Amino acid sequence: MKVLLKLKYDGTLFSGYQVQNGRRTIQGELNRAALELFGHECNVTGCSRTDAGVHAECFCATVSDRNGSGLRHTVPTDRIPEAMNIHLPSDIAVFSAAEVEDSFHPRYDVKQKTYIYKILNSRLRDPFTEHRVWFTGRNFDESDVKRMGLAAKHFVGKHDFTSFMAVGSKVTDTVRTVTDASVYIEGDILHFSISADGFLYNMVRIMTGTLFDVGKGRRTADDIDAIISAKCRAAAGCTAPACGLYLHDVKY
Amino acid sequence: MKVLLKLKYDGTLFSGYQVQNGRRTIQGELNRAALELFGHECNVTGCSRTDAGVHAECFCATVSDRNGSGLRHTVPTDRIPEAMNIHLPSDIAVFSAAEVEDSFHPRYDVKQKTYIYKILNSRLRDPFTEHRVWFTGRNFDESDVKRMGLAAKHFVGKHDFTSFMAVGSKVTDTVRTVTDASVYIEGDILHFSISADGFLYNMVRIMTGTLFDVGKGRRTADDIDAIISAKCRAAAGCTAPACGLYLHDVKY
Repeated sequence: MKVLLKLKYDGTLFSGYQVQNGRRTIQGELNRAALELFGHECNVTGCSRTDAGVHAECFCATVSDRNGSGLRHTVPTDRIPEAMNIHLPSDIAVFSAAEVEDSFHPRYDVKQKTYIYKILNSRLRDPFTEHRVWFTGRNFDESDVKRMGLAAKHFVGKHDFTSFMAVGSKVTDTVRTVTDASVYIEGDILHFSISADGFLYNMVRIMTGTLFDVGKGRRTADDIDAIISAKCRAAAGCTAPACGLYLHDVKY
Repeated sequence: MKVLLKLKYDGTLFSGYQVQNGRRTIQGELNRAALELFGHECNVTGCSRTDAGVHAECFCATVSDRNGSGLRHTVPTDRIPEAMNIHLPSDIAVFSAAEVEDSFHPRYDVKQKTYIYKILNSRLRDPFTEHRVWFTGRNFDESDVKRMGLAAKHFVGKHDFTSFMAVGSKVTDTVRTVTDASVYIEGDILHFSISADGFLYNMVRIMTGTLFDVGKGRRTADDIDAIISAKCRAAAGCTAPACGLYLHDVKY
């Protein structure tokens, strides 16, 4: 049996999830913590490769021996979160651990992922959400938010999302099924929540940039269909910055 | 007329409010920003002197000319928050500005201040509240929180709070009137909110340390009366760390 970890991280000070030489990465920190806790080199495999500055409220990763078959360990599974956290920096924390079959793969077995993009809905900066939201200096009113929500609904369904993929991405199958998309306000934070069977590179951030245009009145909800049909990155809006993006949930 | 600013700050990277040579302070940053915005050296006077690491959700400060009589400026008052923020670092933000009489004093004229102390109510760390709450590794249940709330009520009234003042403080009038004190949970954060006409040095942090003992079952709500009567710092609990403390509101 391998061990499936669920963790949170503040991505601000990381060069993304994936190990890179000489860079501080989530995977790098997990590798080191697993070595220290379990006493031998481990394989850490994540559910996705978040970019520098992107956060996670629920990221899934498996830990196995280097040969990929199970994890040798003497730590009771329910004590692994606290024990791992001792070896992790303060911007990563494991909050759950469970035994899973060796055949389980945290990326290939994903059924649905949910991302949330957070925008500070205020003309004024907020020191407490710095690096954790996109500060645009705008205060959207109720009708703006309603229009953004209607526009988001146009993402739902099985579509070729080429228009919402970063130029240069090498993915060839650009069809994804979006199962839910909504826009809502909590406090002074505007949330764009989207669930799908998978996401293209920068997909949520480009969708957010496009919804931002809808909020400003530069595009309408109905424009979304035309943007999808165009299958051209230039048809969509800007790529919203990494700091507002959260991997929120993963379903297997 | 002087200008009264209301601001928020994340105190993590500051050596407290008050100007100190060679240290990064809130007052130091406000002085610099006022000079840059108004074009001449100003007097910045705050409503209190928060310690290193303490945060503010609403801190009040006046800006006047160096001679203390009014503020020469050409910036429309309602534009001052945005204009000041351009000159302030990202961990301070002004959110309101108003003209006040020259005779107004932001510290001496305070009628009531409210502080909130935040404790993470979880056995596990949370990367998103690091430096913003006290992480004790404890998960208080409903009955613990209820007992802490009952204990907090014993602070209410006009008392000599010597037991809740840091040793070495030079204040001689140690009587303060607490008008409200409560304990409640929001999400996984336990809040201790307290309003008074004034506070002794470390008063809220020592009260929090004492309520923490009540939560753990080491002291009872009724013990609070005996601790107040003792007029001795040693009778109370530990001083909770600065990172969980927020100046929440100031009334004039």
